[in-house]
Amino acid sequence: MKIKPTLHTVLSPKLLDLYDVSNSVVVIIDVFRATSTIATALYNGAERVIPVDSVDRCIEIGKHTGGITAGERDGKIIPGLAHGNSPAEYPRSFIEGKTLVLTTTNGTKLLHMALNNGASEVITGSFPNISAVCEHLIQSGKNVVLGCSAWKDKFNLEDTLFAGAVISRIGAHFTIHCDSSLMAAQLYELHKDDMPTFIQQTTHWHRLSAYGLEKDMEYCVTEDVANILPIYRNGDLIRK
Amino acid sequence: MKIKPTLHTVLSPKLLDLYDVSNSVVVIIDVFRATSTIATALYNGAERVIPVDSVDRCIEIGKHTGGITAGERDGKIIPGLAHGNSPAEYPRSFIEGKTLVLTTTNGTKLLHMALNNGASEVITGSFPNISAVCEHLIQSGKNVVLGCSAWKDKFNLEDTLFAGAVISRIGAHFTIHCDSSLMAAQLYELHKDDMPTFIQQTTHWHRLSAYGLEKDMEYCVTEDVANILPIYRNGDLIRK
Repeated sequence: MKIKPTLHTVLSPKLLDLYDVSNSVVVIIDVFRATSTIATALYNGAERVIPVDSVDRCIEIGKHTGGITAGERDGKIIPGLAHGNSPAEYPRSFIEGKTLVLTTTNGTKLLHMALNNGASEVITGSFPNISAVCEHLIQSGKNVVLGCSAWKDKFNLEDTLFAGAVISRIGAHFTIHCDSSLMAAQLYELHKDDMPTFIQQTTHWHRLSAYGLEKDMEYCVTEDVANILPIYRNGDLIRK
Repeated sequence: MKIKPTLHTVLSPKLLDLYDVSNSVVVIIDVFRATSTIATALYNGAERVIPVDSVDRCIEIGKHTGGITAGERDGKIIPGLAHGNSPAEYPRSFIEGKTLVLTTTNGTKLLHMALNNGASEVITGSFPNISAVCEHLIQSGKNVVLGCSAWKDKFNLEDTLFAGAVISRIGAHFTIHCDSSLMAAQLYELHKDDMPTFIQQTTHWHRLSAYGLEKDMEYCVTEDVANILPIYRNGDLIRK
């Protein structure tokens, strides 16, 4: 009998070091909104998305590459950058063929940690590209770590729900001895039919709805509306 | 209108530093089995329980105090110590009037972290003493941090379920903007009527049932069978 690969869920970047990510595919999850925006930009034809962890680096790389610099703090575009974090800002008519230099805090931090810890492959996941993620994880046959970006290292519900959605779909292909994964799958099963309502209870909803970003968040929990696979290659996230 | 105190749930000792525990009551939760055993020993008349984080210190303090040294690794009593971690080892006929020096890894570590971070009060919680914990938290009127001891810093379900049980009972008395708390409460609501069955899915069940500790774990999810409040005072956990 073939031994199934393992699957673990990491609920915060602070917990990543507890898991062996070597020889694993790590899925970076930042539902509100980085990984949803990354999927959307690549789906709409962006050549690449360069994830960076600081505003200075975003501006610098923007200059070198001619890319579009993007990032928000408190719901507003960061001074010195050109665009925000909203997936709605990146329709095909605007982003096709371009480079997006995106500064995010939680997601980019986790991505670099996964690389430093020896992940064999890093991809990004969100509800808009969930099917592409699931298909890739099954086909790769490797161990999987679902990495929730969380909020300033604190557990968040929306990233956990996405991990649960993946497990709910493809868990049977993996060996899962992981309480985080069991919890995530159960939480997703409980709310899969009332997702747009349930997410209104999350702390992130309260934070972002104060900036009028409700439509963004509803988009970010919609499955398969930007169904491509972003994969990390030498500093860039590109469409596989 | 009176402002309600806050309540947060910390899913792993590694996440404790993200929360402000000063002026808060911190509830140390280590359902399988440290805090269940602590409640049971004090309920059965132990004079005090001294939680220590190493075997050497356990032996040393045992000598100084004449206390009963206790601790397990891999389901067996640690060489050099006299007793194990099972609540069943501490009936009144044995423990009344005595000092128990208990070495645990996960729970003791979190307890000391909470003290170092300036918690104004530290108590321990488990299903066997859940009512005493809930009554105390309401009466104190202070902010509350429910601290899950986890397993070697990894999220575990049983500690989370206990946090959820507390929130389910007394959450209305607190201001809760905390995704961990929301998740814990929902998970508890989902499983409150099938707890003895559900816990068999946890990783800890698999680990401990290999040592024949099923009865212990069933006891540890039984409410109010040792309904006293252990409170930390100058190195000791005593019955309030």
